[in-house]
Formats: sequence, structure tokens, C-alpha cells
Amino acid sequence: MSLTVVGTMAFDELETPFGKSGRIIGGSATYIAWAASNFVQPINQVSIVGADFPQSELDALKAKGVALDGVQIKQDGKTFYWSGKYHMDMNTRDSLVTELNVLADFQPVIPENYQGSEFLILGNLTPLVQMSVLEQMKVRPKLIVMDTMNFWMEVAMDDLLKVLTKVDVLMVNDGEARQLSGEYSLVKAARKILGMGPRYLIIKKGEHGALLFHDNHVFFAPAMPLDDVYDPTGAGDTFAGGFIGYLAKTKDISFENMKTAIIVGSAMASFCVERFGTERIREVTHDDITARIDQFVQLVNFDIDLV
Amino acid sequence: MSLTVVGTMAFDELETPFGKSGRIIGGSATYIAWAASNFVQPINQVSIVGADFPQSELDALKAKGVALDGVQIKQDGKTFYWSGKYHMDMNTRDSLVTELNVLADFQPVIPENYQGSEFLILGNLTPLVQMSVLEQMKVRPKLIVMDTMNFWMEVAMDDLLKVLTKVDVLMVNDGEARQLSGEYSLVKAARKILGMGPRYLIIKKGEHGALLFHDNHVFFAPAMPLDDVYDPTGAGDTFAGGFIGYLAKTKDISFENMKTAIIVGSAMASFCVERFGTERIREVTHDDITARIDQFVQLVNFDIDLV
Repeated sequence: MSLTVVGTMAFDELETPFGKSGRIIGGSATYIAWAASNFVQPINQVSIVGADFPQSELDALKAKGVALDGVQIKQDGKTFYWSGKYHMDMNTRDSLVTELNVLADFQPVIPENYQGSEFLILGNLTPLVQMSVLEQMKVRPKLIVMDTMNFWMEVAMDDLLKVLTKVDVLMVNDGEARQLSGEYSLVKAARKILGMGPRYLIIKKGEHGALLFHDNHVFFAPAMPLDDVYDPTGAGDTFAGGFIGYLAKTKDISFENMKTAIIVGSAMASFCVERFGTERIREVTHDDITARIDQFVQLVNFDIDLV
Repeated sequence: MSLTVVGTMAFDELETPFGKSGRIIGGSATYIAWAASNFVQPINQVSIVGADFPQSELDALKAKGVALDGVQIKQDGKTFYWSGKYHMDMNTRDSLVTELNVLADFQPVIPENYQGSEFLILGNLTPLVQMSVLEQMKVRPKLIVMDTMNFWMEVAMDDLLKVLTKVDVLMVNDGEARQLSGEYSLVKAARKILGMGPRYLIIKKGEHGALLFHDNHVFFAPAMPLDDVYDPTGAGDTFAGGFIGYLAKTKDISFENMKTAIIVGSAMASFCVERFGTERIREVTHDDITARIDQFVQLVNFDIDLV
């Protein structure tokens, strides 16, 4: 039931209406690993960092069951750095600084002991890097999930479309689904995107929840209504980590089980936004998760007996 | 199990990205009645129209079990008229023309045969008119639901706050909840508003669904993902009509049953937006409703057995 996670490990610096984070740990693979490792271990991490990346963070991940054989440490390089500022509504943000650093020429290498992974998640990265990972897998994983973003639709659409034909589940946000499909209606957008390769499409709508599309089926999971969204950074990746972690744990990739996995992902994301960066999700307990999932059941559960 | 509905009956003229409606029938009480009459009859309608309001519409409502004893027909007046244009996202609109006409000095009169209604819904109207209705009810209804809008918060907040102390359920949209409470977080907004009188608060979020708050409980109902939202006019009132219609039918005002009523309201609203005005909801059948509610069950239902 091994899970391979490919993505960034980074430094982030964030400003929200609640304050400034200072320089903290971020990156898609970081969030995915912290979330997924609650459900399945080991996590086979594939990423790249510079010499400035703290050993304490690597140790913390290792202690959580995250294998780091696939994490390249460039002694002559600096870790990917991003800083951003959120607007009052928390749904929009401005990128202030993006320094690719070691990420600029990242050539992922899948270690031999990662081969045979049944589950693979490709965090948001250039489509060529995602494709390189797929080509290195000697046996096709049982389930391949990918994330991407609007930027790649603008500068590498052809490559992106090729990767799309190779994956099972695509995760994008609502704006990206519209951009990729050219359709405003998310239902129409989903129909088009499911024709591009993936058999499953997850459209993330932030505080408005997430939709799962498959054939003519659709499932909706709300976001947990919270007193405050303190910092939305990494919520999408944490969602992805909870989703694939639960699937890898249960080894059941049916549509019915994916519904549950989306609720699990939503629960994990609801923790993520409660504090800056990974602060909350790195301390979350099994009991916290079970209680939060029970809140989701209460949130959406209803009985009906219409005559 | 009688239900009294107070609100506007109107002419609307709408423009959406899909086209122009021409002059059609609208008004909060109209939409509520069309929706609620699928669940409970008679509907005791309280409203006002001018001599220009078509007899055919009154006949159609009557055929659907809507009592019109409380609908004043002003022979020397014109019916309330509103025209508006929706933006591409369908979530925002500009009012082009608002002619109050007979609504300007509407003094509702509750007919004697409406007395004893167990359920009462006050559609969006000036708070003084809503209060006048409450004062005319000789026996307090078992459940009083009210709608309102941002305009009354700006021009008649004191009156509005008085009405709020007299009702059981308040329905507003997310922007109105924020304006009424002064809180951006909807969870915090709900807590404040529940301190103003109503025991239940429904926050409508359009295409993003609806939240029901009560004590420390919260329930969420999604909107049905549709190929196209053709015209959102009246969706909130149709939702309200389905909600109170189902409660009046089942005579159960527990929180658990309100959850189901919100799903029923969401189902009715999902029909409303499929065509201009009341076009779709006036033809919807019992089988259509049952099938749509089943779609909602599929949309949100999931199993979980976390160990």
C-alpha cells in the first residue's frame, strides 16, 4: 500500500489579515506528506531542497514515516522560496516573490526502493517533471493523482495535455477547471476535462467545498464552516494528502470510496487553515481527525422519506 | 397544517447572458406559493397587485391551491415592477428599474379565514409591513420564517431588529448575514444573529449552497451542480417555499427535520433556475421533485468507517 508523493518542499512567507508568518516551511509535497502520513506509511517522498533546508524538518518528516531517499539535497543551492499576501476574503492572493532556486532544474529521480508503489500523487510542478516521474515508474501505479495550476495552462499546455492522458484523477480549482475547458459551467467543464484523459476530476472550491466528477456521477463535499480561516496556504495540498492517504490505506479506488476519501481530505484541509503553514497539521492526532470527520457527517447528513 | 405566505406579487423583466425574459410574473410570494403548494394546500396568500395583473395568473395560482382572499387588487394602481440584468457569473446583478407602484403603501390585511395558520412566512418586505402581519395574527403560528434584505438594514434597521425578536427562522444571503452582524466569518455572524432573536438562521449562498445554524449545530446543503443557471431570479424565494412547504406538510419543526426541509428547498430552487421566472417551477411534478431529491442524496451521501 505504498504511496509515492512528488512535489515541492519550500520556504514560504505569508501575510494574511491575521498577521505575518515569517519564513516557514511549505511546499506541495510537504503538505501532502504531513496529511497522508496519518493514514499510510511509509510515504515515498520525491522532491528537491537546498542546503538551507533545516535538518530538523527532514527529521520531523522521517519520524512521521516519510522516506526521504527521493529528496535531493543540493549543497550548492537554495530551497524554493515563495511569499504571498492574502486579501481580506482569503480567496484571492498576490504572489510577492517567487524564487525557483533549486527547483529551476529539478530532475526527479525515483529511487529503486520506491518502485512498485501502488499509489502516486504528482503535486503541482511543471508537466515535463510530472511526465518524467511517470516514465520512470516501471510498473504503472494502481492510481495516479495529479495536481496542476493555471500557470502551466498558459506556458505548457501541450505538455500538460499529454500528462493528462496518463493519470486517473485530476485535481484543480474552479478557476483552473474553467481555464482548462473553456467552459464557465463547472458541470460542462467537468464533461470536457473527463474527455482529456482522467477518469475522475476533483474541482476544489476553497471555502465552498469540492466536487468529484466521474462518468455521469457527481459528489459534493463542503468545507467545514470555521470561526476563522487563518491561513489557506497548503489547504489544497493537505486535501490531496488526506484524499490519497485514505485511498492508499483502504486500497479501494471505487467511486464510493473516493467520496469518503474526499471527506477525509476536507477534514484534513479544515485543520490546515486553522494556523499558519503546517503548524496545525503536523500536530493533529488520530482522535482529532476522527472527531472532525464526525463533524462532517453531522454537517451533511439528513434523512428523507418523501411519499 | 395551513400556511400563510406574505410577500410581493410583481412583474419582472430580466436579462441574463442567455437572453431577455420580456415582462413576466415575479414576486417573492409568487415564487414561495408555487414552490410550497407542491407540499401543502391551501396556501393563504397575502399580497397586493394592480389592475394590470393578469387574471390568468391568479387563476393558475388558485388551481394550485393558493387562496387569494388576502391578495388586494387595486383597481386604480399598477403592479410592482422590477427589472434587472445579471452579470456573467450570475451571482451579481444590477437593478435597472424599480417601480413600487401599489407596493408603496401596502397595508396587509389578514383575512379571518387565515387566522390559526400554524406556519407563517414573511417574504422580503419593509419590516413595518412584516410587523403588521405579526400583530394581526390572533394566535402565534407554530413557526414563523422571515426573509429580509440589505436595503432594510440600511434604511430601517431598528424596525428590522424588532421583527427579528418575533420570528423563529431568519433567511438571508451571505452578504446580508455579514452586514447584519458586522462579522466576515459566517460562523461568527451566525452566532451574533442567533443572539438577535431567531432560534434558527439560514444563510443562502446561491450556487454555493445554504447553511442552517441552530445553537451550536450547523448543517450544510449544496446547490445542485447544473449545466447552466439560466435565471437565478426567485431561487431564494423558491428555496424558502420548498423549505416551509415541507415543514408544513410534515408538521415537524425539529432541527433534524429542518435539515431535510433545506434539501427540499434546494431541490425546488434547482428547478427554478433552469428557466426564466416561474416557468419551470409552475410545471414541476411530484415525480420530478422526488427524482431531484434523490439526486441530492447521491450528491452528498457517503459512508465512513474510520478505525
